[in-house]
Amino acid sequence: MSTATLPADSVGLVSPRTLQVTTPLQLECGVTLPSHELVYETYGTLNAERSNGVLICHALSGDHHAAGYHSLEDRKPGWWDSCIGPGKPIDTNRFFVVALNNLGGCKGSTGPTSINPQTGRRYGPDFPVVTVRDWVASQRELQAALGIERWAAVAGGSLGGMQVLQWAIDASDRLRHAIVIAAAPKLSAQNIAFNEVARQAILSDPDFHAGRYYDHGVLPRRGLMLARMLGHITYLSEDAMRAKFGRELREGRLNFGFDVEFQVESYLRYQGRSFVERFDANTYLLMTKALDYFDPAREFDDDLAAGLRQSQARFLVISFRGDWRFPSSRSREIVDALVEAGRDVSYVDIASRQGHDDFLMPIPDYQGALGGYFDRIAADLAR
Amino acid sequence: MSTATLPADSVGLVSPRTLQVTTPLQLECGVTLPSHELVYETYGTLNAERSNGVLICHALSGDHHAAGYHSLEDRKPGWWDSCIGPGKPIDTNRFFVVALNNLGGCKGSTGPTSINPQTGRRYGPDFPVVTVRDWVASQRELQAALGIERWAAVAGGSLGGMQVLQWAIDASDRLRHAIVIAAAPKLSAQNIAFNEVARQAILSDPDFHAGRYYDHGVLPRRGLMLARMLGHITYLSEDAMRAKFGRELREGRLNFGFDVEFQVESYLRYQGRSFVERFDANTYLLMTKALDYFDPAREFDDDLAAGLRQSQARFLVISFRGDWRFPSSRSREIVDALVEAGRDVSYVDIASRQGHDDFLMPIPDYQGALGGYFDRIAADLAR
Repeated sequence: MSTATLPADSVGLVSPRTLQVTTPLQLECGVTLPSHELVYETYGTLNAERSNGVLICHALSGDHHAAGYHSLEDRKPGWWDSCIGPGKPIDTNRFFVVALNNLGGCKGSTGPTSINPQTGRRYGPDFPVVTVRDWVASQRELQAALGIERWAAVAGGSLGGMQVLQWAIDASDRLRHAIVIAAAPKLSAQNIAFNEVARQAILSDPDFHAGRYYDHGVLPRRGLMLARMLGHITYLSEDAMRAKFGRELREGRLNFGFDVEFQVESYLRYQGRSFVERFDANTYLLMTKALDYFDPAREFDDDLAAGLRQSQARFLVISFRGDWRFPSSRSREIVDALVEAGRDVSYVDIASRQGHDDFLMPIPDYQGALGGYFDRIAADLAR
Repeated sequence: MSTATLPADSVGLVSPRTLQVTTPLQLECGVTLPSHELVYETYGTLNAERSNGVLICHALSGDHHAAGYHSLEDRKPGWWDSCIGPGKPIDTNRFFVVALNNLGGCKGSTGPTSINPQTGRRYGPDFPVVTVRDWVASQRELQAALGIERWAAVAGGSLGGMQVLQWAIDASDRLRHAIVIAAAPKLSAQNIAFNEVARQAILSDPDFHAGRYYDHGVLPRRGLMLARMLGHITYLSEDAMRAKFGRELREGRLNFGFDVEFQVESYLRYQGRSFVERFDANTYLLMTKALDYFDPAREFDDDLAAGLRQSQARFLVISFRGDWRFPSSRSREIVDALVEAGRDVSYVDIASRQGHDDFLMPIPDYQGALGGYFDRIAADLAR
């Protein structure tokens, strides 16, 4: 796109930066990372009181590029551009927005594709399993490095929302507001089952080479493609799939073969293939494990309310009625625990029925709820 | 098991037989099979009027072994043994029950693992795509060979139920009752999407060798295992998965690795691995295509009622509330079309919440409904 067409409500051209975290990080799995790098972007300006910082946590395949464009040629902006920008729900005229690529990621932060200083080659399968709690610990290093005592808000959808919940438990004096979108207090057996099939697709791909595909000059394309295709089934509601594709035949007739026939097949194959070009299989495995392990109530005898009782944050929980990956009922479990814990919580169930991916979409009711809540945060700050 | 322990309500020891169909069969895809074999079993005795025949149609991974035992050492009886036998819902003291392996199958009927007479080697990927309508045509050959003018009933669950519906449309004067269980009038886009991921898992397995794995002395184990794991997620309701496995850890603790950790992973891997030993990948592909293509209303301008208006059969439709593969709402679409078409239809929605697999389970309400309906069929015959 040319400069002339950069949208007026965009944060515009942005560049990622890298933080060197030199404090050793003790991970839940027992491994200590002596140092690590976090790549991040910021939008807007940190105020003099350093009180208007908003941390954005990403979901399974997200990264630090949440808003704006990296170049004028970019066809698409960052993944949450619909919600972050001047005048948008997370208004960069008022807030200093920070988005990072999580530890274990593949977009610049230390992860399986990084060089292991101990061996001089890529970590690959030797990269330790990281948890949502590890991410919060790592994100606190970023917070400290930016000189932000307390985030005005931490926000995220799906796996991002789980990080927000963990923030509210592990570091509740470090954030004023927790915004948990399209998340769940822990995965269901069915959620884990889907993740397991996706992992097996990757692990059993002969090109996976026990995670050392980099050394073999190949990628486990088939496995990662299957994992992504499967993921996409869970991101769209049945209704949305019906509305989008129905039983439409790509060539208008049955071919009695195994090439693409129905439009939905074409869509899934495209999603799978394009994902392989931009995502790392070892990171995908790590992200699904972080999802499976997430269960912040575990250390409170499975009592989430007990975990949230000490939290100083105020909460906004948002769910989407068409989401069958993390249905509204799972968000209500979080809300119920917050109410039981006596916390300040607002809850919005958005009537949109596209599915889990709705948390990324510019849905007016959703943007209205999110924007309204951020107005309240801004008003709190101004007091 | 020893003779002493063969259950009294079992049809006992049974042996499959083979029918040579020498009439050429013109398939929907355009191919004509000059001849084919069907392997089948029968339980009970055909009466003098040849009026008590009941045809059982199998689902995706089923076969002709629906009841009884092949040997005293068998650990398990046929797949629908809970419903077929003396005194059971489909009472072999009253009915002559016929179950076959469908054309394209891998348990003895002509299919991809059979020798292609034109080449002298296994058909493999050259076996033509077969449809539900082709199966009905092939099953009519079996009916004729058995000297049965009209089935007392044709019954089946899931893909088997779809065959029943097609019977009622294509050969409605050849059956008195149509028993359609846990089925749908056609697949949804989401159903097709799951099938497509399963197919891609098989097709992309390097050991698939474009369907010629027999010639390479290998099997596409990884792909077929993934397909089956994915299938099992759709066979169980979320509630059932939670009740069966919850988030139970197999070793009671997190291992921070990619071996089995949660019980549900162990279950899925076991289901996947054991399936590979007993099923053919090319047949699996064909079965999923038959599911995708099934849409009997298509030739009636998408008006299922129009297709059913001429049917002479009476109908029993059964669904299960926990079934999310083919939910009760899909069965009600069939019922609505039957009502609109002025057909005689009974409908039962079983409260059990295990999932799609409930149609195979000995659920009292289900067995009561099925048995009651067969009592009515028997009473009709006695008139």
